Amino acid sequence: MTAAADSGRPFTVEPWVVREPALHLDAMGQTESVFALSNGHIGLRGNLDEGEPHAIPGTYLNSLYERRPLPYAEGGYGYPESGQTIINVTNGKLIRLLVDDEPFDLRYGQLRRHERALDLQSGILSRDVEWVSPAGRAVRLRSARLVSLTQRAIAAISYEVEVLDAPALLVVQSELVANEQLPAVDDGDPRVEAALAEPLVAEQHRSDEAGATLVHQTRVSGLRLAAAMDHEVHGPERVKVTSEATEDIGRTTVITRLKPGEKLRVVKYLAYGWSSRRSLPAVHDQVRAALAAARFTGWDGLVAEQRAYLDDFWATADVEIDGDAELQQAIRLATFHVLQAGARAERRAIGAKGLTGNGYDGHTFWDTETFCLPMLSHLAPDAAADALRWRQSILPLAIERAQQLGLSGAAFPWRTIRGQECSGYWPAGTAAFHINADIADAVRRHVAATGDTDFEREVGLELLVHTARLWRSLGHHDSAGEFRIDGVTGPDEYTAIVDNNAYTNLMAQLNLQYAAEVAARYPRAAARLGVNAEEMASWRDAARAMRIPYDENLGVHPQAEGFTDHQRWDFENTPPEKYPLLLNVPYFDLYRKQVIKQADLVLAMQLRPEVFSPEQMARNFAYYEAITVRDSSLSAATQAIVAAWTGHLDLAYDYLAEAALIDLNDLAGNTDNGIHIASMAGTWSAVVAGFGGMRSDRDGITFAPQLPSALSRVSFGLNWQGRQLRVTITKDEAEYRLVSGPPMRLCHHDEPLALADEPVIRTMPPPPVVDPVEQPYGRAPRQRHPG
Amino acid sequence: MTAAADSGRPFTVEPWVVREPALHLDAMGQTESVFALSNGHIGLRGNLDEGEPHAIPGTYLNSLYERRPLPYAEGGYGYPESGQTIINVTNGKLIRLLVDDEPFDLRYGQLRRHERALDLQSGILSRDVEWVSPAGRAVRLRSARLVSLTQRAIAAISYEVEVLDAPALLVVQSELVANEQLPAVDDGDPRVEAALAEPLVAEQHRSDEAGATLVHQTRVSGLRLAAAMDHEVHGPERVKVTSEATEDIGRTTVITRLKPGEKLRVVKYLAYGWSSRRSLPAVHDQVRAALAAARFTGWDGLVAEQRAYLDDFWATADVEIDGDAELQQAIRLATFHVLQAGARAERRAIGAKGLTGNGYDGHTFWDTETFCLPMLSHLAPDAAADALRWRQSILPLAIERAQQLGLSGAAFPWRTIRGQECSGYWPAGTAAFHINADIADAVRRHVAATGDTDFEREVGLELLVHTARLWRSLGHHDSAGEFRIDGVTGPDEYTAIVDNNAYTNLMAQLNLQYAAEVAARYPRAAARLGVNAEEMASWRDAARAMRIPYDENLGVHPQAEGFTDHQRWDFENTPPEKYPLLLNVPYFDLYRKQVIKQADLVLAMQLRPEVFSPEQMARNFAYYEAITVRDSSLSAATQAIVAAWTGHLDLAYDYLAEAALIDLNDLAGNTDNGIHIASMAGTWSAVVAGFGGMRSDRDGITFAPQLPSALSRVSFGLNWQGRQLRVTITKDEAEYRLVSGPPMRLCHHDEPLALADEPVIRTMPPPPVVDPVEQPYGRAPRQRHPG
Repeated sequence: MTAAADSGRPFTVEPWVVREPALHLDAMGQTESVFALSNGHIGLRGNLDEGEPHAIPGTYLNSLYERRPLPYAEGGYGYPESGQTIINVTNGKLIRLLVDDEPFDLRYGQLRRHERALDLQSGILSRDVEWVSPAGRAVRLRSARLVSLTQRAIAAISYEVEVLDAPALLVVQSELVANEQLPAVDDGDPRVEAALAEPLVAEQHRSDEAGATLVHQTRVSGLRLAAAMDHEVHGPERVKVTSEATEDIGRTTVITRLKPGEKLRVVKYLAYGWSSRRSLPAVHDQVRAALAAARFTGWDGLVAEQRAYLDDFWATADVEIDGDAELQQAIRLATFHVLQAGARAERRAIGAKGLTGNGYDGHTFWDTETFCLPMLSHLAPDAAADALRWRQSILPLAIERAQQLGLSGAAFPWRTIRGQECSGYWPAGTAAFHINADIADAVRRHVAATGDTDFEREVGLELLVHTARLWRSLGHHDSAGEFRIDGVTGPDEYTAIVDNNAYTNLMAQLNLQYAAEVAARYPRAAARLGVNAEEMASWRDAARAMRIPYDENLGVHPQAEGFTDHQRWDFENTPPEKYPLLLNVPYFDLYRKQVIKQADLVLAMQLRPEVFSPEQMARNFAYYEAITVRDSSLSAATQAIVAAWTGHLDLAYDYLAEAALIDLNDLAGNTDNGIHIASMAGTWSAVVAGFGGMRSDRDGITFAPQLPSALSRVSFGLNWQGRQLRVTITKDEAEYRLVSGPPMRLCHHDEPLALADEPVIRTMPPPPVVDPVEQPYGRAPRQRHPG
Repeated sequence: MTAAADSGRPFTVEPWVVREPALHLDAMGQTESVFALSNGHIGLRGNLDEGEPHAIPGTYLNSLYERRPLPYAEGGYGYPESGQTIINVTNGKLIRLLVDDEPFDLRYGQLRRHERALDLQSGILSRDVEWVSPAGRAVRLRSARLVSLTQRAIAAISYEVEVLDAPALLVVQSELVANEQLPAVDDGDPRVEAALAEPLVAEQHRSDEAGATLVHQTRVSGLRLAAAMDHEVHGPERVKVTSEATEDIGRTTVITRLKPGEKLRVVKYLAYGWSSRRSLPAVHDQVRAALAAARFTGWDGLVAEQRAYLDDFWATADVEIDGDAELQQAIRLATFHVLQAGARAERRAIGAKGLTGNGYDGHTFWDTETFCLPMLSHLAPDAAADALRWRQSILPLAIERAQQLGLSGAAFPWRTIRGQECSGYWPAGTAAFHINADIADAVRRHVAATGDTDFEREVGLELLVHTARLWRSLGHHDSAGEFRIDGVTGPDEYTAIVDNNAYTNLMAQLNLQYAAEVAARYPRAAARLGVNAEEMASWRDAARAMRIPYDENLGVHPQAEGFTDHQRWDFENTPPEKYPLLLNVPYFDLYRKQVIKQADLVLAMQLRPEVFSPEQMARNFAYYEAITVRDSSLSAATQAIVAAWTGHLDLAYDYLAEAALIDLNDLAGNTDNGIHIASMAGTWSAVVAGFGGMRSDRDGITFAPQLPSALSRVSFGLNWQGRQLRVTITKDEAEYRLVSGPPMRLCHHDEPLALADEPVIRTMPPPPVVDPVEQPYGRAPRQRHPG
C-alpha cells in the first residue's frame, strides 16, 4: 500500500483494492459513487451503514423510475411532455447502532480509525471502524457488503460489533426505509421536486421475527416494488431479536449486552423485486423466494459465488499495466464498474452512471452502445447481447417516435430509462440521430466479437432494418446525386443542427451497408420484416452516395458542412474558470464557432478508420486536437485511441490516464452524481484498441501494438469468436497467447500469424516520430509521461 | 351597406364603418379584437358593456405587465429565467344594467336587435340593442365608447337606456373591477396560471358620490396602477346615484324609474395611470387630474377632439381603393388599427397585437420596426420616432444582454414588454439577431421619410453605433476575406441557426454602412459614444466584405448557406389540416428542409431592392414563392410587394387582400387573441410600396405605379420630409399632388418630375407580361382577381 498519489484524493494506490484509509467527509459524494456496488439490476451507493452523514443516499433498481413533467417556456410539436427519473427506492442497507443508548454517528465522539476498502477481486466493500462514543464506550465495527453477481435480486451485509474496553448494551436496528428524506436539490422547478419528493406509495408491510417486507408503488409511473430483509444473528447467548413494520419502515432490532472482546454479528440478506405488470402477491412472493434462496446459500456461500464469478471474469478481463501503479488500479476499477453496470442488467438499460448515482436522471444514452458495448462484447458477451436485446424490446416505441417525427423505421430515444424519449432540448436530443447508427454499429461489433449468427439473425437484423429505414427517410439525394443528411446533431454537443455531420454520415453509411448485407444473409427473416430487393438496393445506393464533406484547402474533413469556415473560438482569452463552457456561454455562441466539446470527427476515425488515409487521419487529428476542449467525459478515451494510431503515444497515455482517473481523482468534479461508466469503458478501449491496435470484424482480428514511453508492459485479454486471447506487450516484443478455443489467425502490424497452443512472439516496431499536436490554450491533458 | 361578403363573417362591407348587424356569439373573440379601441397607451377590447358573455375580457395598459417564470426541461446558460406577460388590468368599461331586477344579459330574454359599429372616422364604437327581459320588459340600449387619442389617460362611455313599452325600475351599475375572473387557459404549466391568476394586489380604494378610484400593484413585477371613474347622469328628476369601493371593486349605482319613451343616460369617464416608480399618492392624483380634465372637456368635447384628430390623420393617411369595396374597408380598418397601436404609445413598446388582445403575451418583436414603422414614419411620424426612442431607452438592457452573450454593442430582445429578453426558445429568439438591423433600418427609413436630422443625431446615432458594434463582434472574416455571420436565425422561422442568412447579412451590411455614414456626419456626437475612425473603418470594411451566398447552378440567392441543397418539403403529401406546420411537425424536420414559413430572402428583396438585378429578383421570387407556405401573418404583404415589383400584379392583389382581411375575415383563425398589427401595416406598404412602387431615401422619393386588373383606381397619401403628397393611380394615369409643403422633385417610373402647386399627371406603362409563378400545393392565396 502506498499513500494516495494526489494530495486530497481519498484513496490509496493498490493493485486490486480501492481503499479509503481515513474518512474524508468532504469527499463523501465521491466515495459513495466509487464504492457503489451493483450488479446492473440493483445498485447501492457506498453510503455508510448507519445512513448518516451522507452526500446522496442511493438505492437504485434498474428501470425503476418515476415520471415527471418536462416544462417548456415555449413548447413545440413532438416535445416529450414527461420525463423519467431514477428514484431512490427503499433503502435496505441501513443498519443503525446504539451503544449504551448513544447513536453510533461519526460526527460525534472520537473516531480512532475508519477504513473502507473495495476489493475488486472479491467484489466486497468492507469497512473497519473504531469509535469511542461521547460517553466513552469504545467499539469496533466491521462490516462487509456485496451485491450479488450470481443472485441478481440479492444484496447482503455482514455487520459485526465488538466492544473494546468496557461492557456495553448494544442495539442494532436493521432497516428498510422507503421515501428517505433526500438532500434538497434546487433545479428551479418546484413541480419536479414535488413529483419526486415522496415517490413511493405504500401498498403492504409485513414483518416476521427476523425480517420484514415492504411493497410500494411509484406514485405516477405505477411501478410496483418489493423490498425484503432477513437476518442471521450471531452473538452471546442472550440476544433479543424483534421485528416490526409500518408503511414506510421495516425494522429488525437486535439487543444484547457485550463484554470486552465479545462480538455481535448480524448478517442481513436483502432482496428486491419490481415489475410494471405483476400483481402484489406475485412481486411479494418473488422477493421472499429470492431471500430464502440467499439465506439458504448463506453469507459464506454468497461470498464464494461472488469470488468465483469475478475470478472467471478477471481471467480474461484483467488489464495489467507495468510502470504506472495508479493507472493499474484505475483500469481495474474501471473494468469492475463497467461489469457492475452491465453484468445482470438483462434486457434493461445500462445507464450513463450505471446504478451508482442519480446523475443524468439515471438515463441511458448512446454511451452504452458506443463506449460500453465494445468492451462488454469482448469481456461479458451475454451482458452486451442483453443490452441490445433491450433495444430490440423498445423498438415499438422507437417506431412510434419515428412516425411522430414523420420518418420511417425507428428513432431511438436520445435519453431514456424505459424507452420513451425524455430529452427536453431537441437540438441536443432528438436531432442527435446518430444514436441509431451507434446501435447498429454495436450489433455489427458484437457479431464480429462473438461470431454469434443467431444473435445477428434474431436480434441484429431487426435493429438493422429499422435503423436503415430511418436513415433512408432522413436523408435525401441532392441534385448532384449525393446522399445528404441535413439538420442533425453529431456527437459534439458544442455544434448542433448541421448538415452532413461527417460522423453521422459515416455511421449511417455503415448502418445502411450492414443492414443490406445482413438482410441478404437472412433473406427469409428479412422478408418477414417486409424487406425486399428494392429496399436493400436503396440502402446500398444511399450508402454508396453518402456525402462526406472534405475541405480541400485545409486537407481535413470538416466535422459538418461549413464547419471549417466558422470562427475559431478565442481560446487564448478563455480563462480556466469558464470551463465547462456550456455552463458559462450560451449555446448560440458555441454552435457557431470552432470549439468542440468532445471527439466527433475523431470518433468517426476511431470507429471507421478504414475510410481515412494515414495522412488524413494525422491531419484531421491535429486539426481537431487544437479545438477540442474535452468538456465531456466521452472524449479523452477516443482522443487516446486516435493519438496512439497517429503516433502520439505519450499523448495517448495522458488521455488514457485522464479517462481512467476521472472518478478516482474526481477530475470532472461531479463523481458525486455517479461513476462515468463510458469513460471507464473507454479506458479499456484505449488500451486494447489504442495501444493494442486491435481492430476486428467478422472475418478476423488484427493488432498493431505500441507502448508509450512510461509503460514497460501492458497485458490484456479478450474473448473473440469462441476463443480467449491474451496479448502482452513490452517495449521489445508482443506476445499473443490463445488461452482457450480453436486455432485462429490474426495479424501483428499487418503480418499474418497463425495461433494455436503455443504463444507467438513478435518484435515491436520502432517508436514513431511525429510532429507534436497542440490542444487549446489551457486544455492539454495533464502531462503524465516523463518530459 | 351591403351584406357581409363572406358567409359566416360577422361584418358588413361599408366604406368607413365596420358593422356587426347582429350578434355573433360564435365570433365573440374576433369581434372583441376588431372592435378593440386603443390609443397605444390604453387598450379596451370590444367586450360588451355588461361584461358577459365574453371570449376574452381585456383591458390593457402599455407596458403594464406581470413577471412569470420561464421553465425549461433542460436549462442553458443565458436562458431568460422570467418572462413578461401583459395582464388584464382593472376593467373600467363594465356597466351592468338591471331592468326590474332582471340582469340585462343577452343570453336570456329576447334580443330584438343588436348592432355594433366601429366608425373609423369618429373613432367611436357604438352599440344599439333592443332587448326584452324574460319578464317581458322591453328596453333599448345605446352606448358609445371611445379611447381618447387626445387625452391619452382617458376613455369614456356614453350609456343610454330607454324603456320601450311599460314603466320599469332601472339600476345601472358602473364598475371598476380588478382581478376579473378569466377564462381558463391550459398552457400546461400551472405555475404560470398561478402567477397570473390574481395579478393585482390592492393598495387603496376610494369612492365619492359619482365615482371611485382603485390603486393596485402587480404582485411580482411591482408596478403600480390606478384606475378611476367619474360619471355624469342625465335622466328624469328622481335619480339616485351612490358609489362604493372595496379592494377590487369600485361601483357607482344609478337608480331610477322610467316611463316609456324616457331615457336614462350615464356618461362614464375613465382614467388610468401607472408607473414603476411613482408613489401611490402621485399615481392616484395623476388619474384624478386626468379625470377632472376629461370631465371638464365633457363627452361632446372628447368626441369632437377625437374626430378632429382623426380628420387630420385621414387627410393624409386615407387609401382609396376603387373596384373592391371589401378591400377598401379592410385597408381603412388596417390603417386605423396601426394608428391605434402607435398613436400615443409614447416611448413605450408597440406590441405585435397592439393593445387589442393577449396574444404573444403582449410582446413586441421586430414587427414594429420592419412592418409598422415604414407606415408610421410616413403617416404619424411622431409615433414612429417615439417607438425608436423607446428602443433607445432600453439600450442599457440591450448592452447588458450583449455582454451576457459575449458580444459587443447591443443585443435587443427578440420579444419583450419592458426591454428584457423574454424568449424561451433561443433558436427562434436570441439567435434572431436580425432584429438589431431591423431597428437600424427603421432609423434610416424614418430619417429618409421625415428628414429629421435632430432625430438622426440624438436618437439614431446611438442606436446605429451599438447595433453596428454588435454585428462587428458577431461576424468574422473567413480565410478568403469574406465577412460571415454564422449560426443565426433569419426571419423565416422554419429555418434556424444557419450560416450567412442572406437577409441578416444584407441588413447587417446596411446597418454597418449607415452607422459609419451617420457617425461621420456627427463626429462629435459619435466621439462621445467612443467611435473613432478605426472603428468606422472596420464597419465599412465588414459591410464591404459581407458574404451574400449565391447558388450559381440555380441562379438564385440561397436563403442561407446550403439552403438550396436541402430536401424540398413534400408539399404534395401535406394535407391542409397539417397547416400551420409548426403545430404538426417538429422543428427538427422543418429546419432541415426547403419550406418557408414567411418571406425571408423575399423580404430582403423588399428592403434592399438595389442589390438585386431585375432578373435575380424575378428568379428569386419564383423560387421562394414555390416553397413559402405563409404560416406567418408577416408574409403576405411582403409577397404582395415583390409580386408587384416582378410584374405579378394580380398575385400581388391577392396577397394584399389576404394581408388586409386577416382579421376582418379571421383568416388565421386567431384574431380572438388580438389584431395582427404587422399585417395591417403591411397592407399599407403593399399599396404604397407595392402598387405605388414608392422607394425613398434621404435624397429623394420615387414611384413606379402599377395597378392590378381588378382595381380601377388607387389613391394614397403620405408625409415626406415636411410635405404632404397624394398619389392617385388609374389604369391610364398617375397623378402626383403636393398637398402641402415646399416644391420637390420625384420620379415616376425613372422619369424625374418637379412638383409644386399644380398636380403632375403622367401616363402609366403598359401592364407587364411575365411567366406565372407557383405556390406550394394548396397554399396559393385565395384568387380574388378575375380570371
